[in-house]
Amino acid sequence: MSKKNNTDKITIFALGGVGEIGKNMYVVQYANDIVVVDAGLKFPEEDMLGIDIVIPDISYLTENRDKVRGILVTHGHEDHIGGLPYVLKHLNVPIYGTKLTLGLIESKLKEANLLGETKRILIDADSVVPMGSIQASFFRTNHSIPDSVGVCLETPEGTVVHTGDFKFDHTPVNGQYADLHRMAEIGKKGVIALLSDSTNAERPGFTPSESNVGKNLEDIFRKAQQRVVVATFASNIHRVQQVIDAAIATNRKLTVIGRSMVNVVTIASELGYLHIPDGMLIEPEEVNKMAADRVVILSTGSQGEPMSALTRMARNTHRKIDILPGDTVIIAATPIPGNEKFVGRTVDELFRLGAHVIYGGSITGVHVSGHGSQEELKLMMNLIKPKYFIPIHGEYRMLRQHALLGEQVGIEKENIFIVDIGETIEIQGGAARKAGKVPSGNVLIDGLGVGDVGNIVLRDRKLLSQDGILVVVVTLSKQDGTILSGPDIISRGFVYVRESEGLLDEANRIVTNTLHKLMNENVNEWASLKTNVKDALGRFLYEQTRRRPMILPIIMEV
Amino acid sequence: MSKKNNTDKITIFALGGVGEIGKNMYVVQYANDIVVVDAGLKFPEEDMLGIDIVIPDISYLTENRDKVRGILVTHGHEDHIGGLPYVLKHLNVPIYGTKLTLGLIESKLKEANLLGETKRILIDADSVVPMGSIQASFFRTNHSIPDSVGVCLETPEGTVVHTGDFKFDHTPVNGQYADLHRMAEIGKKGVIALLSDSTNAERPGFTPSESNVGKNLEDIFRKAQQRVVVATFASNIHRVQQVIDAAIATNRKLTVIGRSMVNVVTIASELGYLHIPDGMLIEPEEVNKMAADRVVILSTGSQGEPMSALTRMARNTHRKIDILPGDTVIIAATPIPGNEKFVGRTVDELFRLGAHVIYGGSITGVHVSGHGSQEELKLMMNLIKPKYFIPIHGEYRMLRQHALLGEQVGIEKENIFIVDIGETIEIQGGAARKAGKVPSGNVLIDGLGVGDVGNIVLRDRKLLSQDGILVVVVTLSKQDGTILSGPDIISRGFVYVRESEGLLDEANRIVTNTLHKLMNENVNEWASLKTNVKDALGRFLYEQTRRRPMILPIIMEV
Repeated sequence: MSKKNNTDKITIFALGGVGEIGKNMYVVQYANDIVVVDAGLKFPEEDMLGIDIVIPDISYLTENRDKVRGILVTHGHEDHIGGLPYVLKHLNVPIYGTKLTLGLIESKLKEANLLGETKRILIDADSVVPMGSIQASFFRTNHSIPDSVGVCLETPEGTVVHTGDFKFDHTPVNGQYADLHRMAEIGKKGVIALLSDSTNAERPGFTPSESNVGKNLEDIFRKAQQRVVVATFASNIHRVQQVIDAAIATNRKLTVIGRSMVNVVTIASELGYLHIPDGMLIEPEEVNKMAADRVVILSTGSQGEPMSALTRMARNTHRKIDILPGDTVIIAATPIPGNEKFVGRTVDELFRLGAHVIYGGSITGVHVSGHGSQEELKLMMNLIKPKYFIPIHGEYRMLRQHALLGEQVGIEKENIFIVDIGETIEIQGGAARKAGKVPSGNVLIDGLGVGDVGNIVLRDRKLLSQDGILVVVVTLSKQDGTILSGPDIISRGFVYVRESEGLLDEANRIVTNTLHKLMNENVNEWASLKTNVKDALGRFLYEQTRRRPMILPIIMEV
Repeated sequence: MSKKNNTDKITIFALGGVGEIGKNMYVVQYANDIVVVDAGLKFPEEDMLGIDIVIPDISYLTENRDKVRGILVTHGHEDHIGGLPYVLKHLNVPIYGTKLTLGLIESKLKEANLLGETKRILIDADSVVPMGSIQASFFRTNHSIPDSVGVCLETPEGTVVHTGDFKFDHTPVNGQYADLHRMAEIGKKGVIALLSDSTNAERPGFTPSESNVGKNLEDIFRKAQQRVVVATFASNIHRVQQVIDAAIATNRKLTVIGRSMVNVVTIASELGYLHIPDGMLIEPEEVNKMAADRVVILSTGSQGEPMSALTRMARNTHRKIDILPGDTVIIAATPIPGNEKFVGRTVDELFRLGAHVIYGGSITGVHVSGHGSQEELKLMMNLIKPKYFIPIHGEYRMLRQHALLGEQVGIEKENIFIVDIGETIEIQGGAARKAGKVPSGNVLIDGLGVGDVGNIVLRDRKLLSQDGILVVVVTLSKQDGTILSGPDIISRGFVYVRESEGLLDEANRIVTNTLHKLMNENVNEWASLKTNVKDALGRFLYEQTRRRPMILPIIMEV
């Protein structure tokens, strides 16, 4: 650790992850050293039409690229690593992660052709990493993916702790407890600021242990008289291990389907995070040759994603596996907000095929959350005992509820900061304050385009999606302004033409009359012609249909 | 009741409400007499872009209009009455409903200019209505709107019971218990078929009493040191009464905002379903003049609807009422699936304004469901004791769970029919069977258009919403096919033009080259030119952007 300079300060801000669920990216700067924690992606909001994914605006980091010492990655979930392929293209800095986390990142970087040029540094919970004047160390946490850690950043101005995503699982599947002792030790030495996961801040009590799920899975497997299909998040290796264990206990073989499930199971097995006995795995093609009560199918699709393996099976369009009447399907997940309808539809389709469907998450005991509930959040705050508290990783209401919990455990109300994306907290001489904003926001990715879709394009997509478009084509004579051809009206997404001929004929007359009137008045600038056609036609269509399609007049002169 | 003819039979089917939540409409026919139960609307699914509402296809009824004896309406919710203005335009038949139900219907018909021509017949729970060979009677139920009834249809072939929406509330707010005795009596006389509400068939146990909410509201009102805002469904008159009662108990005045809330409170007060002491109501304009702890604001917007009063207040755009730091806002509802994000956003915005926000439904005790849970569904089946059971009012998985409950209480598995929309059950000689389909489906309403938006238009809207549209305009010479003007490429919802000039310039070259090539090959039919331009441009854009905008080539000849 370098010596303290009286004018130096800690600056903390989020480039993503506050006021939203997703694209987690937090920055801690001391003097000329910047440490980034995570670089996630977010799935688009419902008003971001046509957008594939959303990543943080990292212009603050690219403008200060010489100061960025590296990206510490807390765990391997998409909302923490999914932005890396985009971020690393513009900011080639070292990445630090535990074994499984790096394994998952490397598979991503390989796809993006970035593996060779990216420096990847393996850490474990005992690593200490000097990053200029900041010294990073780690502590083990429990989460719905193994090998997750919290981060402890010691600076001359004090220690900043970032929890990563966490719960306290007192009976963890892999025997690796959250490191209460190290957290206690960190707390005892003194922490100036804590950034802590707010996902379940609205939920009272304790989140149940992942190992509860295993017992229930085994019960269900035992009762099932035919094949069992289990859909869960691929990255939930503990869950996957419990599926394997339940399969072993009930003398069933296992097959794995869905791209991300195959990918994660492969990586996790290779790295020693999954224990699959020899001869346990069978190919999907072999399923139909086996006795139905000797097979478990582990699948993607727990969110009802349209192209996933489970959705295909539910629709009877999976190439290799059909659901048969009497099969048991377990959806071991709860729908992420926004996905309820997709999951519901998948359940409906599975029921229609005659399957027994076990769904609904915690009610049926086949899913538990990976995030700590209120009592666990309080436990974390009481262990770390920070002077300042910044709730992160959550929508505003979750941050707010977390702040209230902070007050309950005795953190001073004025020492709790709920921040927006880009809003900075500066700590100097032991005192923290809000100190302006750095550039920040959403970068929208649509196909290969990164950031080329902005508000105007989205607004147009919204308009088009509501009432469609009418293109009005007219050719005018350059000499005398008479109509040489058209108006032709082409409609897409407005009305079904064959059933609305009368309406479109009338629309045609409106355009013709408008143009004739303007000619008679000697109005002949294009802009004026277009605006008048647009207004007259828009008014007419709204009166007739109460709809406002986009109108695109194309007036040509020859 | 007319005499039985051996060839006559009962036919039962749903025109809406099975396999979906919404647009409830059920049909029971005996010989030449058709009785319709309810005529609801549904809100559009997320893939029905730009659609306002969805109603049932009633072509079976209009084709058999001389047989339709009337529409029995079980209660005044939109998913049971919202289709009436459209249905009655094509099918002028009498409507039967209880006082509040008719009151709400009449307000709808007035807006649609249908009040004069519609025969409305007031019934109560004791009414007996002959409808040709079918005799209708009713039984009182509990639901989240007063004056709800179930329907009992006696035919020469046996009695069919339709529960309407129901729960069993043993401590109802208005003292009106579900009529257990009449249900028992009906059951004892013998019922051939039961159609019963499946909404909460997935939920174990009993739904709590509405009166639980009242106590919690009063507690919250008492602790609130400033104004209290309560948002709930306008039609939940019991809830509204409890808000009024809690306001009285805590010495607060009440103001009502939001169009549907004002409308329903007015109708319900006039008809005697709401008891508001004189001097209790104040105008919204008076709120700011009152001491903050003397006011309750009753508002719409419990679903986070974008234009609702609560949403406007949360965004600080309500004309009359601002939320002040320290105000208490109660959202006394749970989000309908699909609305979670809207409600979440409203809560976020209210928190940002400094309000105490109480939300989350049953966890905080400010909302209970209006539909019975599994034990209540079993109670209903045990009271009515039907030979055949048809679960209605629910998505497929709910119907399925309800069917399983039916088996549990001893209804023969082969006597339980889960039906699709339009699928008929015929009962003759005491035996029921599935017997084909009648025309049925969704009629989409977009603005003033009823049914003029079909799959092609929706598919276009979907395409447009994802990647926008490119219009390519070229004028060719009639003589020699040379390009006289263009190609001009106009893009909407594809890319932001100023940032993508290079791409569009290149697109332009592609179109020009394609046309030149075709000219040289003497290809000059429009269809061919268009297809070639579309394909070449589409291929190029997909390679460059991985997007597939709609491409509309407009080729003019002069």
